[in-house]
Amino acid sequence: MTNHEFYMDLAIKNAQAMKGQTDPNPLVGSVIVTENRIVGVGAHLKTGEPHAEIHAIRMAGENARGGTIYVTLEPCSHHGRTGPCAVAIVEAGITKVIIATLDPNPVVSGNGVKILEEAGIEVIVGVLEESSKKMNEVFNKFIVKKTPFVTLKAGITLDGKIATHSSNSKWITSEEARHDVHQLRNEHMAILVGVNTVIADNPELTTRIANGRNPVRIILDSTLKIPLDRKVITDKLADTWIFTSENFDIEKKSLLESMSISVFPTSGSKQVNPKEVMRILGEKGISSLLIEGGGTINAAFLENKLIDKAIIYIAPKLIGGQQAPTFLEGSGIDKMADAVDLLDADIIKIGKDFKFVGYPSYTI
Amino acid sequence: MTNHEFYMDLAIKNAQAMKGQTDPNPLVGSVIVTENRIVGVGAHLKTGEPHAEIHAIRMAGENARGGTIYVTLEPCSHHGRTGPCAVAIVEAGITKVIIATLDPNPVVSGNGVKILEEAGIEVIVGVLEESSKKMNEVFNKFIVKKTPFVTLKAGITLDGKIATHSSNSKWITSEEARHDVHQLRNEHMAILVGVNTVIADNPELTTRIANGRNPVRIILDSTLKIPLDRKVITDKLADTWIFTSENFDIEKKSLLESMSISVFPTSGSKQVNPKEVMRILGEKGISSLLIEGGGTINAAFLENKLIDKAIIYIAPKLIGGQQAPTFLEGSGIDKMADAVDLLDADIIKIGKDFKFVGYPSYTI
Repeated sequence: MTNHEFYMDLAIKNAQAMKGQTDPNPLVGSVIVTENRIVGVGAHLKTGEPHAEIHAIRMAGENARGGTIYVTLEPCSHHGRTGPCAVAIVEAGITKVIIATLDPNPVVSGNGVKILEEAGIEVIVGVLEESSKKMNEVFNKFIVKKTPFVTLKAGITLDGKIATHSSNSKWITSEEARHDVHQLRNEHMAILVGVNTVIADNPELTTRIANGRNPVRIILDSTLKIPLDRKVITDKLADTWIFTSENFDIEKKSLLESMSISVFPTSGSKQVNPKEVMRILGEKGISSLLIEGGGTINAAFLENKLIDKAIIYIAPKLIGGQQAPTFLEGSGIDKMADAVDLLDADIIKIGKDFKFVGYPSYTI
Repeated sequence: MTNHEFYMDLAIKNAQAMKGQTDPNPLVGSVIVTENRIVGVGAHLKTGEPHAEIHAIRMAGENARGGTIYVTLEPCSHHGRTGPCAVAIVEAGITKVIIATLDPNPVVSGNGVKILEEAGIEVIVGVLEESSKKMNEVFNKFIVKKTPFVTLKAGITLDGKIATHSSNSKWITSEEARHDVHQLRNEHMAILVGVNTVIADNPELTTRIANGRNPVRIILDSTLKIPLDRKVITDKLADTWIFTSENFDIEKKSLLESMSISVFPTSGSKQVNPKEVMRILGEKGISSLLIEGGGTINAAFLENKLIDKAIIYIAPKLIGGQQAPTFLEGSGIDKMADAVDLLDADIIKIGKDFKFVGYPSYTI
């Protein structure tokens, strides 16, 4: 680890500590180093409050002069609540700026660097860039694409099944892994399942952890066949939005709406159109979506290249069964060489199970 | 780590270093400690040569007197080539014996401890017992059950498939993982596949690493439909043994035997009987078997509770496909609660892939 990486790592750690309290702003951290001594640290704490650089500059005071500032995200160039950070850096007499990653918003990306360089400040971009990007992966996608960052979640047996041949699936993973799933739900603005899951399991789709925030419940239901006695319809624990196809039952739609359930028709005669689901969710301000679908829904989203991240809990158990379902069905890819690779793949142990995390790379 | 564990760990490390050079004897290591100082270390190097304790006692010389000996396996009680180790320990004046695990052979298990205790020596059994047992897992099973220790190997996509819906499977895993498989082949006395794999892929089933030892190639072929031009029949790179059902083609059997291929009929009208395969392999002195079968063969062995260990290489990629095969098919288990748990489960990264290792626990 170089010196630059050491200080940037501290800035990232400070930024990450604020996870969940900065929305809709990104996580940002900053460190100021003058003559090999840290003279200031800062992080963005809350929307409407100062940016990370401002906190660090205030802590450093006069010691910022002649120093180097590390910041996980390009200093802003716009006049927000605290003025442009790039200007504040110039005014503080800082002579070097190390940036992990440029602003993801193409409208302003590079503008902060331009202000700094025009003031004669040396700027280096790209130190621990990947870590910094990953920290704000949801924000970075949403601000550019205006559609949610999509995480596919599944719990599988080692032999790849999500249920036995007789559709029994309780429980695949351990309590620790299931707790982790509730943590995931807590971090997502919306959760998506198919109507068949709602019919079969009658799930609540809520976050069962202390002080948990319930995501909006998104149900894909091409004909609006959802029974009206399901918990997602009746329990009022969270909003429920149903996406349907062109061929929905108009009376059922009115009935659902009278029960405070939102119904969104999409194009597509037989299936709900996943791309339209994404567009509508984006318009509604949903920046993160957790898909807990079965193999057919998961495959539809993957085939449309809509999955940004896969989190798969692998239970060390075997059940067998040629007819037992896997978490990814559909028609599937024809050639192994055309498989969707998952980048930055990692597995950690969680309880008795293993948690896989990776990022689909769509090359074709 | 206690002192006992520290010294036993060193004994295990010495034992493990001899992997592959002690067959058919087990791996055994030993350490002698007198007045908090290591005065001797030893390991069994080669069948026909002294046991681990004898080497350690020789190195310690007079320093063994009053000392503590750590040994990964119960000292022997029989008059072999070097006399009973238990007696040698008594004669060396050692006053305390720490044993990782008792002799797995029920005929002699406990006899070494008895000799030591009758001589007034304090004996402790069970320090790092699991590590020691795992080191000799093949030996321990074979000496008791007289059937091979069976390892199921498969390479799968993250979504659990071993091929696409159109049977394409080249390649699922990375070169590093495939190299590891050849290491596995090198460590096993026999490798088993089904005839359909032989027909479809025409594999060599050899060990493609430097100085690799080729396992005996076991083919399950219930009707003896194997084509005579397959590499396992013609290449003479290793022995090929074909196991068949009651309803084999008698002329084909003679033909195969004339080509130096061994053919073993088993009971079972449609399928080869896996339990008889195991019995026959045991009689032939095959102590370790690597199964690289498809989902049907793997399921047949699992359903008969014949798999001792599972090694699954998981490639971080997705292919989907409701019709794509998994490594465990058959009819499968009905209730998730009855799944076969894999104990001591661990995953390590190997190249781009992940290597899962676990031990099936058959509770019902």
